[in-house]
Amino acid sequence: MGWQRQPHGPSVQQAVETALAEITGEQAVVHAAGRTDTGVHASGMVAHAELQSELAPFRLMEGVNARLKLAGQPVAVLAAENAGPDFHARFSCTGRAYEYRLLCRRAPLTWNSGLVWRRPNRFDIDAMNEAARHLLGQHDFTTFRHVHCQAQSPVKTLDRLWVEEDGEAVTVHAAARSFLHHQVRSMVGSLVLVGEGRWRPSDVAEALAARNRAALRLNAPPDGLWFVRAEYRQPSE
Amino acid sequence: MGWQRQPHGPSVQQAVETALAEITGEQAVVHAAGRTDTGVHASGMVAHAELQSELAPFRLMEGVNARLKLAGQPVAVLAAENAGPDFHARFSCTGRAYEYRLLCRRAPLTWNSGLVWRRPNRFDIDAMNEAARHLLGQHDFTTFRHVHCQAQSPVKTLDRLWVEEDGEAVTVHAAARSFLHHQVRSMVGSLVLVGEGRWRPSDVAEALAARNRAALRLNAPPDGLWFVRAEYRQPSE
Repeated sequence: MGWQRQPHGPSVQQAVETALAEITGEQAVVHAAGRTDTGVHASGMVAHAELQSELAPFRLMEGVNARLKLAGQPVAVLAAENAGPDFHARFSCTGRAYEYRLLCRRAPLTWNSGLVWRRPNRFDIDAMNEAARHLLGQHDFTTFRHVHCQAQSPVKTLDRLWVEEDGEAVTVHAAARSFLHHQVRSMVGSLVLVGEGRWRPSDVAEALAARNRAALRLNAPPDGLWFVRAEYRQPSE
Repeated sequence: MGWQRQPHGPSVQQAVETALAEITGEQAVVHAAGRTDTGVHASGMVAHAELQSELAPFRLMEGVNARLKLAGQPVAVLAAENAGPDFHARFSCTGRAYEYRLLCRRAPLTWNSGLVWRRPNRFDIDAMNEAARHLLGQHDFTTFRHVHCQAQSPVKTLDRLWVEEDGEAVTVHAAARSFLHHQVRSMVGSLVLVGEGRWRPSDVAEALAARNRAALRLNAPPDGLWFVRAEYRQPSE
């Protein structure tokens, strides 16, 4: 069910909290830099928990990973360290980066099923990058926001959005201090319309200016979305 | 059960032959450049079948892929074309290339489970490449041959074997006209021993010279093995 603990199904948060509780005996809440939706992947998520345990971070990580594996959870901790008392994985985070991975080919997916979004035809990458530039900077992103988004304001500053092609594989890179709910998937859906010649790059600018969810024509599925990096300002800065 | 049709489980060959039969009404045998084992992947396999059908190759591919998807088979045809009457995917093949993909980290695999071989520690890549050079050229590869290998001779010519590192990801590239059964996995297992400091590069040369399967200490699992390319000499050459 994605990152966040849910009453009706398994979640990444629940898996990690359960493993931590089994190792330390403490019922700690685990806070993450981003709350990924069902079907979204994370290769660079950062999370923290407040623990009394004096286990060394490496031992804790090894124990949590052993429990996660034993429970058959497709979740693993890649690194662990002690953080200062002021650190908060979500509120201290100063930058978030996503990749959206597409594969342009006729044939169905096999081993990569669920890991990328397959589209049958090749894209016009230059047109996609032209469209992407319309979204950079500070804007009201209401068009690209899920109706259930809980953010106080629809105004966000998009720092990077660009499209890279490697044969049939296409990756959309997106970075900002923070994103609205479904913002990356909504922007990617619009870029795909441009890449497939169904929208002109200027149509993306018009959709943005409309500040209306109804102006969105295509929302990308969760499959291709990867949370790849969380950034934190160093204490000395 | 890998490529080859088996009485006791599903195979890639059976999946493709069944889909072809459903589309064409013909019970054709599908021959592949290489017969991958259970758990081995192929991103560049070439196969052929003799058909009476006059369906255009593109239509045939689309139909076969639709049937494979409907049957829930993790198999897809990436491209199809008519071949000359002398073409045979296995016997006309003049070069085969494999990649063996490793991931060096402590944490268990998640989305990439079954797709790579995880090893807990980083490798000495230079030592692995030094060891790989001992295997290049024409040799009796009995040490690196499965006991059930059906090849007439254990003598093969290894054209390329080298190791590439990209962060935690390590790829072993291997190319030859043909390989013995388990040859790539046996060579990779030996290179891993060198990368982990358990063997010196010269131990690989000694294992080769022994011409004895008992000299093999570690066989790599199928998970990380990918058949990536089959080469064919052009008719004009």
